[in-house]
Amino acid sequence: MVPPQTLLDFLRSRDKFLILTHLSPDADGLGASIALAFALETLGKKTVLLDKDPVPRHCSFLPGQHRFHTFESFRAAGFAIQDFRNFVLVDCNSMHRVVGSRETLSARDFNGTVAVIDHHETERSFGDIRWIEPAAAATGLMVYYLVKALGVCITGEMAVNLYTAVSLDTGNFRYENTAPEVLRVAADLVEMGARPAVIYRELYESWSRGRFKLFVGVLETLEISDSVAITLVTRKMFDETGSSPEEVETFVSFPRIMRDIKVSALFRELDDNYFKVSLRSRDGIDVARVAEGFGGGGHKNAAGYTIRADIDTAKAEFLAQLKLLAPSRT
Amino acid sequence: MVPPQTLLDFLRSRDKFLILTHLSPDADGLGASIALAFALETLGKKTVLLDKDPVPRHCSFLPGQHRFHTFESFRAAGFAIQDFRNFVLVDCNSMHRVVGSRETLSARDFNGTVAVIDHHETERSFGDIRWIEPAAAATGLMVYYLVKALGVCITGEMAVNLYTAVSLDTGNFRYENTAPEVLRVAADLVEMGARPAVIYRELYESWSRGRFKLFVGVLETLEISDSVAITLVTRKMFDETGSSPEEVETFVSFPRIMRDIKVSALFRELDDNYFKVSLRSRDGIDVARVAEGFGGGGHKNAAGYTIRADIDTAKAEFLAQLKLLAPSRT
Repeated sequence: MVPPQTLLDFLRSRDKFLILTHLSPDADGLGASIALAFALETLGKKTVLLDKDPVPRHCSFLPGQHRFHTFESFRAAGFAIQDFRNFVLVDCNSMHRVVGSRETLSARDFNGTVAVIDHHETERSFGDIRWIEPAAAATGLMVYYLVKALGVCITGEMAVNLYTAVSLDTGNFRYENTAPEVLRVAADLVEMGARPAVIYRELYESWSRGRFKLFVGVLETLEISDSVAITLVTRKMFDETGSSPEEVETFVSFPRIMRDIKVSALFRELDDNYFKVSLRSRDGIDVARVAEGFGGGGHKNAAGYTIRADIDTAKAEFLAQLKLLAPSRT
Repeated sequence: MVPPQTLLDFLRSRDKFLILTHLSPDADGLGASIALAFALETLGKKTVLLDKDPVPRHCSFLPGQHRFHTFESFRAAGFAIQDFRNFVLVDCNSMHRVVGSRETLSARDFNGTVAVIDHHETERSFGDIRWIEPAAAATGLMVYYLVKALGVCITGEMAVNLYTAVSLDTGNFRYENTAPEVLRVAADLVEMGARPAVIYRELYESWSRGRFKLFVGVLETLEISDSVAITLVTRKMFDETGSSPEEVETFVSFPRIMRDIKVSALFRELDDNYFKVSLRSRDGIDVARVAEGFGGGGHKNAAGYTIRADIDTAKAEFLAQLKLLAPSRT
């Protein structure tokens, strides 16, 4: 993976950068951003890190994460977007992903050069310098090559950030995107100071007791219909376990631990008779089409939608739609 | 990691080998054995694969696993240990680990040269040629270097076996033993045909529905005392879910997904008022000492014992013993 010369020239020739990642930041966006900031600072540049939302708790071990400003703390520290001329968007490729749909901030506020470093598919061509690698497993992987191309020696702190980024976006080396290159870069990062067992524990084994109770409660709601697993989480369950909606996010994947489960759906109660439905699939079943049928969307193997109905109707309509679209698969 | 010349000479100069791995074989023992057999066959040798116990279901995807004989099928096929002169013990280093304590078969029956390839610590020096690497993450890793040293090209089938071996013994790259070398060898094996996502699913995401129900049932029994998690599985729970004791084995690790759990104990009912206790720990708490106090044993972070008592007494005695030995840690 070779970073474009325009990107290298931009990073080398400017002095001060505002580095931004996406809403609800994850370990790939955060780790890649922080490692890039450290590398630029090694070259004598100034950097400011900014995200709309705060760093989530499971990323609080990342060295340098305290450097990330929220929009609020950014303003409170006396910064303004308009004061910057050099921007780097990391792990996202549109303003929408950075500021959300309701913000008044827009692309026009970014008065200068915008570089984009991302591995997500792109719909529009936002940015002046674009390095988009949809085949890259993680943006952290791209930043690894970028830091090396800048001639900067990867420190232990950069290594922890980049390894964590790669671990998150490959499911700790269990997804299809675990290419030989991913494992080789991970090996280098371990050599440079990343500790796989420590990072794994921080990312994946730092649940609160409330989250654990919520997990058991969600598993208890499991219903199986052929190869489809359906689980439910209500507002009452959040209240009783003192846990938050973000803590339930990964649970939808869990029922796929069963050999014969091809589709997993988690119904999360948002309000009376109003549910958010998260879908995961495997073996080629396209749940994005199912979600689109309800006005939602997503990827083939991970999609979602919201529905206003009582829970029994919501489940029945989901199953009917799924059977219509993938009759022989489930 | 360099295999000893004596081992290479032995493998190159002989024609027919009996390859054995340990009781209750796992993916490291099986995968390493099969890959070695394939490599020797590439060199024109004959090999027979033998294990006392059958290949477990979650290893049934390993290419060549059908080649493994149990003691019964070995005899039924007209083989006898006494007919072989060249033996290779893989992923174990004593006869005890191969035949169990009650077998009549002994070291004397192995009339010829015995080579031992293992990464476990060894108590005795069994075998004529010994290659023991306690620092190696997996025996599959050692066999990778051995196959290369023999000058054999690693095929896709060997790669799947070796990658699976390495994945199992590193917890899919999440344990402390995930060294840079482990990741680099894994990268090579992916290049040679191993598919990480497929292997992960076979090894870790092929639960039966009964096992899943048992898992939920076990989690429902969770009690927490300071940083100690205690769970219970009864004979009735096995009956009701149609699952077997071997399916419960990994469950003891699960409560450690909680940030503040340092010790996890799973009490498995063997008979009325008779329990097998499995222990897991982290943060330096030595559960082997606790197990030894009850006549059991194990390693610092993974140990076990059996106890004759009612469940309440058994739990109370465990907690008392633990607090006695690690008062400030839990």
